[in-house]
Amino acid sequence: MAIKFFIEKEFAGGLGRAGILETLHGIINTPAFVTVGTKATVKALTPEQVKETGAQVVLANTYHLYLEPGAERIRSFGGLHKFMNWSGPIMTDSGGFQVFSLGAAYGKQVSKIARAQTNSHVLTRQNPMDSDVDENLFGTLAKVTDDGVSFRSHLDGSLHYIMPEKSIEIQHDLGADIIFAFDECTSPRETSRYQEEALERTHRWAKRSLDYHNSHVLQNNGIKTQALFGIVQGGREESLRKRSAEFISSLNFDGFGIGGSFIKEDMETVVKWVNKILPAEKPRHLLGIGEPEDLFMGVENGVDLFDCVAPTRNGRGGTLYTSRGKINIRNAEFREDVGPIDADCSCPVCDQGVNLPGRHPYTRAYLCHLYRAHEMLGGTLGSMHNLYFIINLVKRMRESILNGNFPEFKKEFLKVYHS
Amino acid sequence: MAIKFFIEKEFAGGLGRAGILETLHGIINTPAFVTVGTKATVKALTPEQVKETGAQVVLANTYHLYLEPGAERIRSFGGLHKFMNWSGPIMTDSGGFQVFSLGAAYGKQVSKIARAQTNSHVLTRQNPMDSDVDENLFGTLAKVTDDGVSFRSHLDGSLHYIMPEKSIEIQHDLGADIIFAFDECTSPRETSRYQEEALERTHRWAKRSLDYHNSHVLQNNGIKTQALFGIVQGGREESLRKRSAEFISSLNFDGFGIGGSFIKEDMETVVKWVNKILPAEKPRHLLGIGEPEDLFMGVENGVDLFDCVAPTRNGRGGTLYTSRGKINIRNAEFREDVGPIDADCSCPVCDQGVNLPGRHPYTRAYLCHLYRAHEMLGGTLGSMHNLYFIINLVKRMRESILNGNFPEFKKEFLKVYHS
Repeated sequence: MAIKFFIEKEFAGGLGRAGILETLHGIINTPAFVTVGTKATVKALTPEQVKETGAQVVLANTYHLYLEPGAERIRSFGGLHKFMNWSGPIMTDSGGFQVFSLGAAYGKQVSKIARAQTNSHVLTRQNPMDSDVDENLFGTLAKVTDDGVSFRSHLDGSLHYIMPEKSIEIQHDLGADIIFAFDECTSPRETSRYQEEALERTHRWAKRSLDYHNSHVLQNNGIKTQALFGIVQGGREESLRKRSAEFISSLNFDGFGIGGSFIKEDMETVVKWVNKILPAEKPRHLLGIGEPEDLFMGVENGVDLFDCVAPTRNGRGGTLYTSRGKINIRNAEFREDVGPIDADCSCPVCDQGVNLPGRHPYTRAYLCHLYRAHEMLGGTLGSMHNLYFIINLVKRMRESILNGNFPEFKKEFLKVYHS
Repeated sequence: MAIKFFIEKEFAGGLGRAGILETLHGIINTPAFVTVGTKATVKALTPEQVKETGAQVVLANTYHLYLEPGAERIRSFGGLHKFMNWSGPIMTDSGGFQVFSLGAAYGKQVSKIARAQTNSHVLTRQNPMDSDVDENLFGTLAKVTDDGVSFRSHLDGSLHYIMPEKSIEIQHDLGADIIFAFDECTSPRETSRYQEEALERTHRWAKRSLDYHNSHVLQNNGIKTQALFGIVQGGREESLRKRSAEFISSLNFDGFGIGGSFIKEDMETVVKWVNKILPAEKPRHLLGIGEPEDLFMGVENGVDLFDCVAPTRNGRGGTLYTSRGKINIRNAEFREDVGPIDADCSCPVCDQGVNLPGRHPYTRAYLCHLYRAHEMLGGTLGSMHNLYFIINLVKRMRESILNGNFPEFKKEFLKVYHS
């Protein structure tokens, strides 16, 4: 087994748990927040800085790396770990990324559908916004068939075709510790009939992903070097979500992703339906979710892993997390503010060097200046702070599970956060 | 005295020397390259990363900080050191920055003149390109009078007036260890008559800068907290340069800047004229110069300090220094290159962690990927490498002076560099 998962403590009267996920590149204490490094780099940060945020694991995007610099090239360099100088655990998504923005347009061009969706309040990892890349892929020509997805590169217009086997082959080349089955993520606005069709396709693709993985994954002394997670889909419909959780559970995946584009109100219900069915002994990853309220909800309902671009994208834009909610550090009120971003935060930006001579926390005023002056250091410091904040928040949830006071911690944190 | 300067060893048969410059925030081993941090940040780098490049001192730009976030604001935060979290020595230029682009247009609008100059091959610190900011100030309305310079902010069009006393007042607010007198830097294309007029103005401004400084600089137990350097101007004319060196030497400055926009061929001659006259016991800063050949020339001719935006600007753009000359890391030839930027370089990017488990130098291929993918980490790593390369090059010149083999080192380095 490429990974091992141990549950240390379960959440009394609920689905939640604290555990340890062992990979060949190190352990992940769960629940854990997974830092997104779309193009084999966590935007604006060196690997050392990523480590300083407390990150144990990063997730890169298969679609982007496949197009640039190419998966075979990364394989020839010895895989993602060496390529991006990150020696800890790495995950890659499946490139199913396209399937959402394109999937709703089964057999059709995507752009129309995408335009209809831009005003919707949809949370999804497969929304192009969620790849931590500011490009808009919606104009891309693409087509979903039962066999796979054909699409044009957003970089040079070249034509590509990804089917489950190809997705896994690419992810084998990339060499992450944990990879994902190829799936189709639908919009919650789709009809029931389309949701069901897409789900059946995702299930067939899951089986094909697993088969290809089992017969092709590199083994080292009889141990697979990469773990494969299956992805549960099914939109917002109870019957479909449960059917998906049951089907995906029945396959011998090493762990599970919970995918989908959620209307925020649906998310908790969906996670509950799914996690009551998924086998407790395997890790579960709620894909593309990362706001504090949602992290509490996920942990409470048995999610072990989360990833989201919000901390880094917000960090680059100047929206910073604090224990009292988010602030926009560019606002004029912060120009004279000599306090740290968050007086309760111990990140390298807020707390740095208080014990070192001549060093002190970065002030809100300085950060405000950096963002207003369009200085890259703003994005770097903001990303470091935000990542630390979110990673550390999930760590504290983990500790509260181990200490048996998760509900109290949640209540107290959210009370102050929304104050 | 806010600074002390000791000469350790002189260059046999030449003007060059190795020394130690003590400031209230630490020492600078000279000759030294000064890292530019225009807006109170070295672009794309944290102060820790700047330190890792071997930098002992940074130079911020008075003009930019005066406009944003404002000098009084920085003073209220305890000065630049605290504001930007750099506990080592800091220098600020005088804001004479405008005077070059505007000076040639004495009493007129600048834009016309500037257009005439854009094709010229002029090296100058006061060229807006040299502030490490990509904005073009040439369109600004501004006017030089004998009393000072009036100009409009490039940020909001607001009207400002800087005269020598104001420049020093701003620099007192900023609180750098070493500050510069207000000067006018002329284009080498100006007439002799204009050069002479401008030089006389610069000399009067030097005297006014010094008088204001002496009567207003903050003292701590009778010791001035900031040192003031006078600036020698005079264009490419021997008589003017020598007159300027003599006049500025006659004033009680703590050190000297050699300013001006140089046609490259003139630079060595000018530096020789000036440094033969400047008192040997005080430090000399060649403003805005930083390419390897020019650094050798300057050190050989008695320059102790240099600053230039080239390492960081080139670093952001993907032009990287190597012991065999500059390379553009974006070029296709580097896409498959698993070597470091420069196999002879010990910077944190080229040499990082070869002794650490799981770490290795960043490859040219990865850097090529980062620049092509417009990832900020490219600019960060490129800037770190370039700064280390240039700072370390000047350090090696220093060592070769101490070891008595500067000419051999210069010859060997440039032979390989141009190979």
